[in-house]
Amino acid sequence: MKKIEHIGIAVANLEHASIIYEKLFGAPAYKEEEVASEGVKTAFFMSGPNKIELLEATNPESPIAKFIAKKGDGIHHIAFEVDDIIVEIARLKSEGFVILNDVPKKGADNKLVTFLHPKSTNGVLIELCQEIR
Amino acid sequence: MKKIEHIGIAVANLEHASIIYEKLFGAPAYKEEEVASEGVKTAFFMSGPNKIELLEATNPESPIAKFIAKKGDGIHHIAFEVDDIIVEIARLKSEGFVILNDVPKKGADNKLVTFLHPKSTNGVLIELCQEIR
Repeated sequence: MKKIEHIGIAVANLEHASIIYEKLFGAPAYKEEEVASEGVKTAFFMSGPNKIELLEATNPESPIAKFIAKKGDGIHHIAFEVDDIIVEIARLKSEGFVILNDVPKKGADNKLVTFLHPKSTNGVLIELCQEIR
Repeated sequence: MKKIEHIGIAVANLEHASIIYEKLFGAPAYKEEEVASEGVKTAFFMSGPNKIELLEATNPESPIAKFIAKKGDGIHHIAFEVDDIIVEIARLKSEGFVILNDVPKKGADNKLVTFLHPKSTNGVLIELCQEIR
């Protein structure tokens, strides 16, 4: 766990939320990206070594659409950067954490990602991500 | 907004949650602290330049007790480090953000803190914090 890579925030309207976060940080999103496999479009903001990722669902089956329907706009997950995601998955499994996908998948922002189930992390959805080298 | 200083996570049982986060980070909390004025006891974990703050309510009137009663354990707020909290409060007010306390107060971990109301930040409770020099 090298650092908090980003915090993912579920938003109903990416355009509207981006205006707010642009004011908050005093700078616009440095990247917008659609991840079709996850059913989301995203905007990334920089805060020193960390990022904020805003996520809007692009279809009603997207996990973000389901989250918004249940809880409204709000913090969706915390992503930690790791050096070697395979090693970290093995370590966390041995500690009793439930890994959502044992084989990491391609996420936004050139990353390999996996998630820890909130039932094993005291109610918090945690992402692990590793830069694709 | 220099970086994400910490993420605050509301927990019903600090001792239980600390065991989980110790396994997650592979290291124990580096500090535990009670903030009587806020009605919380806290434990801090390090992740590179960032921290995770676990918060357990110490009385039923604590904002953390109310959060847990409504939503259960989960992410409570994001705190951003700023150089000068007075300057940043003035800037954000001029941008239309609602500041919960215009005069920053003493928080945990030797910080001056204030909060932005979630209604002005797309549903996210955001803390500003500045190291007390």
